Amino acid sequence: MAKTRLGEFALIERYFRPLVGDPGAFGLTDDAACYRQRPGDDLVLTADMLAAGVHFFADDPPDSIARKALRVNLSDLAAKGAEPFGYLLSLALPAGWTEAWLKRFVAGLAADQKYHGVTLLGGDTTRAAGGLTIAITALGRVPQGQMVLRSGAKAGDAIFVSGTIGDAALGLRVRNGMLGGKARGTKHFLDRYLHPQPRVRLAPVLLRYATSGMDVSDGLIGDLTHICDASGVGAEIGAHLVPLSSAAKVALAADPKLLSVVLNGGDDYEVLATVLPGAANAFAAGAAAAGVPVTRIGEICSGKGIPVVRDAAGKVVRLVARSHTHF
Amino acid sequence: MAKTRLGEFALIERYFRPLVGDPGAFGLTDDAACYRQRPGDDLVLTADMLAAGVHFFADDPPDSIARKALRVNLSDLAAKGAEPFGYLLSLALPAGWTEAWLKRFVAGLAADQKYHGVTLLGGDTTRAAGGLTIAITALGRVPQGQMVLRSGAKAGDAIFVSGTIGDAALGLRVRNGMLGGKARGTKHFLDRYLHPQPRVRLAPVLLRYATSGMDVSDGLIGDLTHICDASGVGAEIGAHLVPLSSAAKVALAADPKLLSVVLNGGDDYEVLATVLPGAANAFAAGAAAAGVPVTRIGEICSGKGIPVVRDAAGKVVRLVARSHTHF
Repeated sequence: MAKTRLGEFALIERYFRPLVGDPGAFGLTDDAACYRQRPGDDLVLTADMLAAGVHFFADDPPDSIARKALRVNLSDLAAKGAEPFGYLLSLALPAGWTEAWLKRFVAGLAADQKYHGVTLLGGDTTRAAGGLTIAITALGRVPQGQMVLRSGAKAGDAIFVSGTIGDAALGLRVRNGMLGGKARGTKHFLDRYLHPQPRVRLAPVLLRYATSGMDVSDGLIGDLTHICDASGVGAEIGAHLVPLSSAAKVALAADPKLLSVVLNGGDDYEVLATVLPGAANAFAAGAAAAGVPVTRIGEICSGKGIPVVRDAAGKVVRLVARSHTHF
Repeated sequence: MAKTRLGEFALIERYFRPLVGDPGAFGLTDDAACYRQRPGDDLVLTADMLAAGVHFFADDPPDSIARKALRVNLSDLAAKGAEPFGYLLSLALPAGWTEAWLKRFVAGLAADQKYHGVTLLGGDTTRAAGGLTIAITALGRVPQGQMVLRSGAKAGDAIFVSGTIGDAALGLRVRNGMLGGKARGTKHFLDRYLHPQPRVRLAPVLLRYATSGMDVSDGLIGDLTHICDASGVGAEIGAHLVPLSSAAKVALAADPKLLSVVLNGGDDYEVLATVLPGAANAFAAGAAAAGVPVTRIGEICSGKGIPVVRDAAGKVVRLVARSHTHF
């Protein structure tokens, strides 16, 4: 540690203690946090780790990196129908970190905490074995026994997805120089890649209607395959039904091969859910009332394996790229 | 990802799913774990992150690295009086990892899980931004309102520490070539550095008697200072009272300057606790019955600041080195 650097304890006190909002975190002055569950609730826990060069670029804005790290965890909770309330943050800082960088990182967390109603409960800070690495464990609650699982889909269920699909994958292509920097929508794609929007407000609607759900982080087809595998069912979706942003529509019109990127690319952090066919309209209305657009893209069927994708004419679409992975 | 490598999902299924022992982890096939608190309990949560080159050496045995990562978290829970039950593991694997390495890493976790009665609840696996990085969030439970805090020490309380102090810091010196490779005790010191022993069995005794407690990870003096700061008290300990292994006694006799290393070095993962003076004997007896040796090393007093260390003649001992930090 350079002499001019803050020590670990000063750093925690100056930057992380202001993120605490729960007495059970003891102002980060103890070794552990204490949480008392509300009667009738289950605790929902998820952990996601983000590494420089894998999930973000080391030179991305520090507040964007912080927001993404928190949001991908909140996205998991939302898809399970859980109301988020807190998180633990383990942060490995690379050589050369600065207080100016950290200040912006923490500002990103502070803004998102406020927006989503969560607070820091604990964590750890260490030197990194290479680049910046962020591990978050996020906590939420659901009424007992009501967590939305991957495994509840049944043949006949309608398949819904929130927002639009593929923008973040197109953003990663822009970032990697694989999609024209002057193309329309560039800024929109980059923003979707950097700033996922966890669908926290959809959680109570999922609790009420969803037979299964998960967030789309590894690509729509790959994640729908996970639901099918866990539920022991198959699925059919219409490529033409998948909701696209106007920018993505323009990009696809210019290069139809991008359909594989859109359907298999990662980092959407939208919600994929199934609902009983009779509840489809009520679910869509509930989602709209919560301010989250959802689109029906297909149907669960008997069988198993990778979902069948059809075009508007009913013809099976063959996709080139494989599911996205951060591994 | 090299083509010959396992994908993330196959890796989880082959290596991590066997570590699951709780239905709320859904065999790691869902996005989150679900936990229902037992009525009358509080949940205790702690997070520790370990990075290659900071907390362990990249060429340490993989099972030792895994055990250390889990044990430092269990050590935190034990010092809070909590009974551990589960953990989430986020693992960033460096380029060049092999299945043979991972198999041994997982075997280390499996052995420790069995020994301490905990199971894997969830986590994440990713490529590392540099060296191996391990982030664990561990969960335990205590009866409501009874978590042992740092902040409960009062003037007059007896100060206790478990096991022996300084062996791990001497082990780090051996590992760094700063302590003679042929000196007596080398193997013992290295083992203490590599394989901390979380004092899980001391937890119920702490719950019953301790007014404050924490584990000694950053050095005895530094961690006692944390208790003093949190409790608004001072402390006096006897350097001659601090329990040493026979190997550490030999090393100190040969080089008395090592006292600073012993009292300020990190990685002991013993428990530091305070108890009411009238409960000191009962605490020691309870600890002995639990199979954990504890030693009374001093007393909490009014005042504040860094604890006063005296020798057997009552003379104040000045220490050279500063508190250990992993930052």
